[in-house]
Amino acid sequence: MSTRELHLNAFLMNTGHHEASWRLPESDPYAHVELGHYVRLAKIAERGTFDSLFLADSPQLWGNLAQRPAGALEPLTLLTALATATEHIGLIATASTSYNSPYNLARRFASLDIVSGGRAGWNIVTTAGAEAARNFGLAAEPAHAERYARAAEFLDVSLKLWDSWEDDAIVGDKAAGVWGDDRKLHPPRHEGTYFSVEGALNVPRTPQGYPLLVQAGSSEDGRAFAARYAEAVFTAQQTLADAQAFYADLKSRTRAAGRDPEHVKVLPGIVPVLGSTEAEARAAEQLLEDHIVYEHGVGRLESLLQLPAGTLRLDGRLPADLPPESAVEGAKSRYTLVVELARRERLTVRQLIGRLGGGRGHLTFAGTPEQVADQIETWFTRGAADGFNIMPAVLPSGLEAFVEHVVPVLRGRGLLRTEYGPRRTLRERYGLPRPANQYLTPAPALV
Amino acid sequence: MSTRELHLNAFLMNTGHHEASWRLPESDPYAHVELGHYVRLAKIAERGTFDSLFLADSPQLWGNLAQRPAGALEPLTLLTALATATEHIGLIATASTSYNSPYNLARRFASLDIVSGGRAGWNIVTTAGAEAARNFGLAAEPAHAERYARAAEFLDVSLKLWDSWEDDAIVGDKAAGVWGDDRKLHPPRHEGTYFSVEGALNVPRTPQGYPLLVQAGSSEDGRAFAARYAEAVFTAQQTLADAQAFYADLKSRTRAAGRDPEHVKVLPGIVPVLGSTEAEARAAEQLLEDHIVYEHGVGRLESLLQLPAGTLRLDGRLPADLPPESAVEGAKSRYTLVVELARRERLTVRQLIGRLGGGRGHLTFAGTPEQVADQIETWFTRGAADGFNIMPAVLPSGLEAFVEHVVPVLRGRGLLRTEYGPRRTLRERYGLPRPANQYLTPAPALV
Repeated sequence: MSTRELHLNAFLMNTGHHEASWRLPESDPYAHVELGHYVRLAKIAERGTFDSLFLADSPQLWGNLAQRPAGALEPLTLLTALATATEHIGLIATASTSYNSPYNLARRFASLDIVSGGRAGWNIVTTAGAEAARNFGLAAEPAHAERYARAAEFLDVSLKLWDSWEDDAIVGDKAAGVWGDDRKLHPPRHEGTYFSVEGALNVPRTPQGYPLLVQAGSSEDGRAFAARYAEAVFTAQQTLADAQAFYADLKSRTRAAGRDPEHVKVLPGIVPVLGSTEAEARAAEQLLEDHIVYEHGVGRLESLLQLPAGTLRLDGRLPADLPPESAVEGAKSRYTLVVELARRERLTVRQLIGRLGGGRGHLTFAGTPEQVADQIETWFTRGAADGFNIMPAVLPSGLEAFVEHVVPVLRGRGLLRTEYGPRRTLRERYGLPRPANQYLTPAPALV
Repeated sequence: MSTRELHLNAFLMNTGHHEASWRLPESDPYAHVELGHYVRLAKIAERGTFDSLFLADSPQLWGNLAQRPAGALEPLTLLTALATATEHIGLIATASTSYNSPYNLARRFASLDIVSGGRAGWNIVTTAGAEAARNFGLAAEPAHAERYARAAEFLDVSLKLWDSWEDDAIVGDKAAGVWGDDRKLHPPRHEGTYFSVEGALNVPRTPQGYPLLVQAGSSEDGRAFAARYAEAVFTAQQTLADAQAFYADLKSRTRAAGRDPEHVKVLPGIVPVLGSTEAEARAAEQLLEDHIVYEHGVGRLESLLQLPAGTLRLDGRLPADLPPESAVEGAKSRYTLVVELARRERLTVRQLIGRLGGGRGHLTFAGTPEQVADQIETWFTRGAADGFNIMPAVLPSGLEAFVEHVVPVLRGRGLLRTEYGPRRTLRERYGLPRPANQYLTPAPALV
């Protein structure tokens, strides 16, 4: 095994990341709310010695019911159930800083970290879209910059709450009748722009200190936020050059923020479509594209690009006069990636929808297990990735195929662990230190 | 078995409901954050064919660390973990309507209901105390009546969200590429005094429709709320006469609210302290009282009674001029119960603390298994209870003793089921119907 360790995260999404996956004969249209489906996926990922699994989320019903599976079990609930069904794998839940209270959310992650023996991770999102805002009493979505300002304060308060008990605050002296040491409690007494939080958390400090902090926005605000807080970053990159540029930029920003660049792991997403030959892989990809309802894709693309309904024609191209990313308040980096992909490869709207159907902007790669392993190794060794966010087009079969056929190749090349070994926390799996308590040391590593 | 079924709920609280329980040699001072401790308790309760187990909660750190175990795993997280470790027992979590958003909380309960196969219950609380308020950006606790007005709107919105998918909204037509039927989606589009919630929940309708709704406040506002929404009520009652009066009042209010009085189950709390003889039970009770640190109890009593620190003396009595319940903004019914207990039995402050140490106002009953069963049978058959909230003074031993020794007596008398039989939802265990979807029927049973 090389000294540098490849990290794999399984990004789970009901019947798979391809929007048409639910239509395949093998797929269960109710999988998105079946605990058994997710238990099965988690166990497959553990067979593949993945570092972690991950669930995306937004507090709203996306799109409409006709087009494809909608809704999802609340991620922290589902991950708590998976914690008891697994032993080693990390459990990363998405949760929004715009539509939660720090006290409640910090407590829930602390509780999951305890229940899972130190395997909790938080994918921190600010949640784009007016639909979510309108489920929480707001007429419109807060501006992008404001969402990130709130997120930063949310993190500061959460870190204070997670540190509000020193590790040895519980004494348990039965004879003296003294259970804990109140001098080792540090109520935040936080008064800020977005939050006032006075008291200590009602959960002791957890195995990891706090959950692994993950971030996935690649906009300017997103990168600044990641440099300051994130320990792992999920990103969508279409080319090696773009991925290298992103990687170098993020490491350099992290250094500039006074942190060790090794302490942020960069994981691009990849949608592997496997076949025992290249032709077989392409056929599998084609089968999925054949199941896309292109008319549905047009509406979603118009929504992403913030165009009026009816603007796009399937066999036309994107308008030449799309606004710049800076004018977009939603998912900024996804916007730019899609526009650039269409222009670089001169795709029609239909072709673009086909390309996005598999990974919504993430790199789809159809090939043999060796080819997929080559791709992973290249990006890993050439400064584009510390690991990968594996996003199978179809679940569970795509994850099963990856673990069955690609994982052995990666192990054979000394890139991936062959077994978990002793139980470890998620942060230890990612080669990160347990954070010091900010109330004990003058300069904690993370803030 | 009599036609009327006795319902038992296990109220779990770290090392037990007696404040000194953690000091006994058998107790683990870290039990409150040990998943294994709670799994063990849940399995004992399932051996005793309890209907449900229950966790109290408040989003704040109660009291201080020196006096007794403080903090707790977040209840919905803990119950989700217990869902996978149990098969039949209902899982009731406390959550606050004052410090949550309806969209998030409704979704979490829906997710637990799905993951547990229809075993979720929600103990709806408005959360007394300024400490909690100050963890959520408020300077002071909202007034009692305002908390209940918000709670009512919170429930109305939650019911809309839980009904926002009809049961058969998922179609799963792979050939046609139609996953769901959008005509069977009913976004709340709610605009009220406290909440605006536009969109449908992002979780389909659950096995129970929605969680069993539980309520535990016995104030005027609390009773009115229970009559309108609750399907089970936890209550603290010290005498048969008081319990009968409460029972009759709540059933009559429920009828007046247009609901079937059979559809709200009343469960007083009882702290059984068991011995194989009466003397042994009294000795067990005395052992616990000997471990109370009375000086700590004075401060807590002053806080409950809203008296300045230093007002009470251990060997004195309560002041004669305490304000009426109507002047109290905190836990109103608990206030009255404690004041009346002290006056009725002419207790000194020390004696009152001893009495409250076991059950914080709930009925402590020390005796043989037969005597405890007699007490339960009397209240059950004489119009004071539909079941009991069992609150062992010491855990796990007190729950183990109850299941080992009292449950067989109750079964022998035909009061309690001898086995669970086929899997059922929590609502079915309590003899309640699955609620109709409000968007389908003109007059749903519950609202």
